[in-house]
Amino acid sequence: MSARVPVAIIGASGYTGAELARLLALHPDVEIAQVMARRAAGQRLGDVFPHLAGAGGRLDLPIEAFDADAVAARSKVAFACLPHGEAAPIVAALVERGVTTLDLSADFRLHDAAAWASWYASADHPAHPAPGLLPRAVYGLPERHRAALRGASLVAVPGCYPTASILAIAPLLDARLVAADGLVIDAKSGASGAGRSPGQATHLPEAAEGVRAYKVAGAHRHTAEIEQELGLAAGAPLTVLFTPHLLPMSRGILSCVYAAPRDADAAAADPDRFRRALADAYAGEPFVDVLPPGRLPDTAHVRGSNRVQLTAVYDPRSRRVLAMSAIDNLVKGASGQAVQCMNLALGLRETTGLEQVALFP
Amino acid sequence: MSARVPVAIIGASGYTGAELARLLALHPDVEIAQVMARRAAGQRLGDVFPHLAGAGGRLDLPIEAFDADAVAARSKVAFACLPHGEAAPIVAALVERGVTTLDLSADFRLHDAAAWASWYASADHPAHPAPGLLPRAVYGLPERHRAALRGASLVAVPGCYPTASILAIAPLLDARLVAADGLVIDAKSGASGAGRSPGQATHLPEAAEGVRAYKVAGAHRHTAEIEQELGLAAGAPLTVLFTPHLLPMSRGILSCVYAAPRDADAAAADPDRFRRALADAYAGEPFVDVLPPGRLPDTAHVRGSNRVQLTAVYDPRSRRVLAMSAIDNLVKGASGQAVQCMNLALGLRETTGLEQVALFP
Amino acid sequence: MSARVPVAIIGASGYTGAELARLLALHPDVEIAQVMARRAAGQRLGDVFPHLAGAGGRLDLPIEAFDADAVAARSKVAFACLPHGEAAPIVAALVERGVTTLDLSADFRLHDAAAWASWYASADHPAHPAPGLLPRAVYGLPERHRAALRGASLVAVPGCYPTASILAIAPLLDARLVAADGLVIDAKSGASGAGRSPGQATHLPEAAEGVRAYKVAGAHRHTAEIEQELGLAAGAPLTVLFTPHLLPMSRGILSCVYAAPRDADAAAADPDRFRRALADAYAGEPFVDVLPPGRLPDTAHVRGSNRVQLTAVYDPRSRRVLAMSAIDNLVKGASGQAVQCMNLALGLRETTGLEQVALFP
Amino acid sequence: MSARVPVAIIGASGYTGAELARLLALHPDVEIAQVMARRAAGQRLGDVFPHLAGAGGRLDLPIEAFDADAVAARSKVAFACLPHGEAAPIVAALVERGVTTLDLSADFRLHDAAAWASWYASADHPAHPAPGLLPRAVYGLPERHRAALRGASLVAVPGCYPTASILAIAPLLDARLVAADGLVIDAKSGASGAGRSPGQATHLPEAAEGVRAYKVAGAHRHTAEIEQELGLAAGAPLTVLFTPHLLPMSRGILSCVYAAPRDADAAAADPDRFRRALADAYAGEPFVDVLPPGRLPDTAHVRGSNRVQLTAVYDPRSRRVLAMSAIDNLVKGASGQAVQCMNLALGLRETTGLEQVALFP
Repeated sequence: MSARVPVAIIGASGYTGAELARLLALHPDVEIAQVMARRAAGQRLGDVFPHLAGAGGRLDLPIEAFDADAVAARSKVAFACLPHGEAAPIVAALVERGVTTLDLSADFRLHDAAAWASWYASADHPAHPAPGLLPRAVYGLPERHRAALRGASLVAVPGCYPTASILAIAPLLDARLVAADGLVIDAKSGASGAGRSPGQATHLPEAAEGVRAYKVAGAHRHTAEIEQELGLAAGAPLTVLFTPHLLPMSRGILSCVYAAPRDADAAAADPDRFRRALADAYAGEPFVDVLPPGRLPDTAHVRGSNRVQLTAVYDPRSRRVLAMSAIDNLVKGASGQAVQCMNLALGLRETTGLEQVALFP
Repeated sequence: MSARVPVAIIGASGYTGAELARLLALHPDVEIAQVMARRAAGQRLGDVFPHLAGAGGRLDLPIEAFDADAVAARSKVAFACLPHGEAAPIVAALVERGVTTLDLSADFRLHDAAAWASWYASADHPAHPAPGLLPRAVYGLPERHRAALRGASLVAVPGCYPTASILAIAPLLDARLVAADGLVIDAKSGASGAGRSPGQATHLPEAAEGVRAYKVAGAHRHTAEIEQELGLAAGAPLTVLFTPHLLPMSRGILSCVYAAPRDADAAAADPDRFRRALADAYAGEPFVDVLPPGRLPDTAHVRGSNRVQLTAVYDPRSRRVLAMSAIDNLVKGASGQAVQCMNLALGLRETTGLEQVALFP
Repeated sequence: MSARVPVAIIGASGYTGAELARLLALHPDVEIAQVMARRAAGQRLGDVFPHLAGAGGRLDLPIEAFDADAVAARSKVAFACLPHGEAAPIVAALVERGVTTLDLSADFRLHDAAAWASWYASADHPAHPAPGLLPRAVYGLPERHRAALRGASLVAVPGCYPTASILAIAPLLDARLVAADGLVIDAKSGASGAGRSPGQATHLPEAAEGVRAYKVAGAHRHTAEIEQELGLAAGAPLTVLFTPHLLPMSRGILSCVYAAPRDADAAAADPDRFRRALADAYAGEPFVDVLPPGRLPDTAHVRGSNRVQLTAVYDPRSRRVLAMSAIDNLVKGASGQAVQCMNLALGLRETTGLEQVALFP
Repeated sequence: MSARVPVAIIGASGYTGAELARLLALHPDVEIAQVMARRAAGQRLGDVFPHLAGAGGRLDLPIEAFDADAVAARSKVAFACLPHGEAAPIVAALVERGVTTLDLSADFRLHDAAAWASWYASADHPAHPAPGLLPRAVYGLPERHRAALRGASLVAVPGCYPTASILAIAPLLDARLVAADGLVIDAKSGASGAGRSPGQATHLPEAAEGVRAYKVAGAHRHTAEIEQELGLAAGAPLTVLFTPHLLPMSRGILSCVYAAPRDADAAAADPDRFRRALADAYAGEPFVDVLPPGRLPDTAHVRGSNRVQLTAVYDPRSRRVLAMSAIDNLVKGASGQAVQCMNLALGLRETTGLEQVALFP
């Protein structure tokens, strides 16, 4: 029997860090060797997340301050759950020291440093902090880049909205079934996507019975990685209109992608062809469920699991395609996908530690 | 001082009936003379809706079985809150007897009996039950048909989704600012839109933490009236792709209408022109708030009120317009709008009884 | 026709201030002359509360900094929605200037300055800031102190939990039907009771699907006023065990008061006597609904209204009484009750401006 | 390596059946050999529960009609998730055939057939259907009856409210720290406790923003088993006042048990003694977390897990103890506890298959 792979969670005081702890606690091939955070250093994980406090202290680990050498000394793998800009230098230090790194920030998702700068630059980080590493980073969507993820040393784990949106429409672009121009993405997210810091928009009395869009008209940064990946699928750069919404629930993303068919006659003759194209593209995928005709994705059916529900429908009257997906934003949209990528990077079975069934109801 | 106008609520055991009771209770110019329902006849209103039981019995009225003559004998106005198909004959009987009728069903919303048949026909009602009355019915959206509503004897109160969607985009079609082709409407509704009968989809344990689309790809009947009214705005028939969603909240609709600008250069030069066009179109409207730049509609801000929040944004990157609206589906989307129409029909001040401020938080 | 009474809302940026704006907007005998707040001064009310922004600006008033002379110059009545300790000096300044003042803080609820100090003292306010005014303050629970409220110049509007709890059990103490010793109060509140400032406990992702007690074992300050008022009912000082809970909803308090009957045999012979005692005590009360046997209070049935639902049941097996109440914490538990008290203080009809029916569903 | 134990789920179309599927899917020592239901027979599990449909069909099993011989032929263990009255004959048939049976109904929880009749008798089942089996049934609360559960052939899995309530207070009765007389239990439950059948009380629009008690004053049948088990702890029969509440959330029970200390002086001198008594009683328990001073149970922190959070506090002013617990009603309150009991009955490690961390947020 081989020893478990020691892993570190950096940025353990946020939701994606806690979710990694939840998932990795049941992963038979790894062990959580270290948890680190900046402000919470000195506390225990159970002080920050009471649901991790019990169970005989198994997950109630001491939170250390970040130190790249300490990680390299004790862990083979690191998950970086840090804000963009802040993540890149830390990731660079880890990769330099030979630590396989799963970066959950946006810092290595865009292949082009200039694109990063146009979407993410700030006073603190006017340019990408580690552009030299960009060629090494693999965009961590296994359903699109599995081969490159095997043995990868640096994985840029995708955003939650991009995961849901790309998986819904990319195969239809691959197959040239829909036009690359004019894609509209209307996505709905639970409030955990806003992170753990309380704010007016997620204050329960104000959020509990309301729905609203935010960062509309191209203002949301996830637009960039959606366009990058869908451009690859379409074979040419494209733009999308992406509209995120905040919903009165904790977890889940439902993404609706509206597109025009390239061949309306063929679509009218065979309206199910879009759904079948998804089913064909994802045949054998361990976490993707293309639903049978008549069933529609529901975030309640994937909550807590790494699964993706997908379908596509065609409306002959308006001659438009609607491709839809449902994921748990913290699992397939973040930490579960990170574990899936880690499994590929380490050569483990891809589904290990991710077999949990959705928590319903 | 004149006497109050006696009104009847028919179909008082559903949400729109109860909402009418709530609103009319504070209307200074009318009094609820009768409440009627089929299955609940013999009970009191407070047995069916405990929130209407108290208050010294003011609203705890006895529920009668429907009788057109009894209505005509005691009421000048009737609100019909009945299922489509079932409503038309009852409405016809009331109109015949000279009762000003506000029909909250879909039976008189479509001007064309053939269109009704193609969307609403059933075994019980293969054809429109009262086609002769269709020319007399006014589509009860005051912001679009105010003149015709003054003195109207039969008002077809619009559906909730159509109210939200038409108000958001019609002025941009009127002004020829957006293309009539390819409109995509992605609308999100609270669960009260599904009515009062419990079902699996609205069972709290299953609905509380999930979002899902339903009746996609042209399957939702509200598509018909949206297309009718937007066709009038555009000056020619059009089709839309309408996708409704069920959200884990009680009330509210947020409707997002995606459109292509007719002049992308002008739009790029002046991205705020769409929002301003809404503001111009609705200047002076008593219930419409076109939001200032930077603010976005939120159903939590209109809950319980007859108000509409609107805006439009333009994304120069993807060259698409997003027009958005938020309403309370039971107020501006149903009973409040019915009262607004009644005020116009009776020659009362349009806002009477509808001044209630939104309940927030 | 007489002019409307000008009123000021001080502390308008919190929920009770906004709720006063909502209620007073429909009050026919008063007008909101001024709104004031500290941090929000310079903004408009609609900037702070978007649901108050529309409606033609009717409620979108400019927020001024507090100035007692400015209030006295323009308003006859003031509502003070300020934190305890901070409220007392401001209230004193207003009362001195002859402004009828409704204080929604805890500063004048306890008749005894020493009691105030033991529950509310802080580094900033080691002693009551205006003890001389205490004898003038009337505890603003009209169902208990109506006579004293007529013409009152200073009203201490009760806390939300005390309103719900006192109304449920006081008549049973008055009538000596239950023992004064050993009262247990288990109360459940929506998250708006925590105020408008976001925090971890009310962050939607963490609060949406959880219930928890807080400030247990006598730690919640509302204990003091509950004991004061119930002691008056019982004729002697008493102590209660009060346990508040935070629930995943916006508004509403359900308070369960557990008590021992003084005569278990009489109770066994006539278990409905406790409910009837409530009904007798509140006969004619305009806002109190003692429910018929078999019906139980539900916060969903009073939301947005000033009504109270009450009942009492007796369990012969365990020989215990349960008295229960449901209110909207922001209406009967705060701003609605303040308006009710104002009506009494000014000699207006008690229900004026408070006829709004609950928003259900 | 030994083969997995084949198990049957009978009554698989309800929430406890689905939850067993979720848990057993990850249990390394058993396999789900059969799923059975009455109305849903002929469908697949994924038709009834879409969240069980994906994952390559692993859980999308065909639903069979119940047949005791078929179970005995293929399964060694059966979980019966059936209504009371209906369960007993089926359980009897299984036990007769040598199938280790975990009964999630109430039929074998009360040791006394007369007690069963007084709480559960109906026209269909005027007397207990299988009284001869009662002596063989073990009440499946491992923290109270572990020894008897080892090797048991028939386990009566406790109700959700009893699990939460008994675990909170029994050790304080064991230790004679609180009086057995006058216990008051105020418990709050998520709506999944009402089962899967939709109803008005769990219709989202009506339930989403309300809290209410139900089956008050001894009307809830869980009272019987609470009293049975607490009577064992106290050494003499006792009665409790149990009040359940329905909350606007899916899962979770928070139970508050109010008691009088037997020695108020000792309690005043050492208020933490009650909490420590819980900690001592549950030392080494694999699923029980007695919280450190200052922390309080929260259902959000145990959701989806088999864990119990517990504490007890003492209020010297009112001289009352409050013992509290939080569980997930479908896991520790039903299916998780059933698996825990199965592990004991089969001689497996008690925690196997139950290590899942709570899903938070």
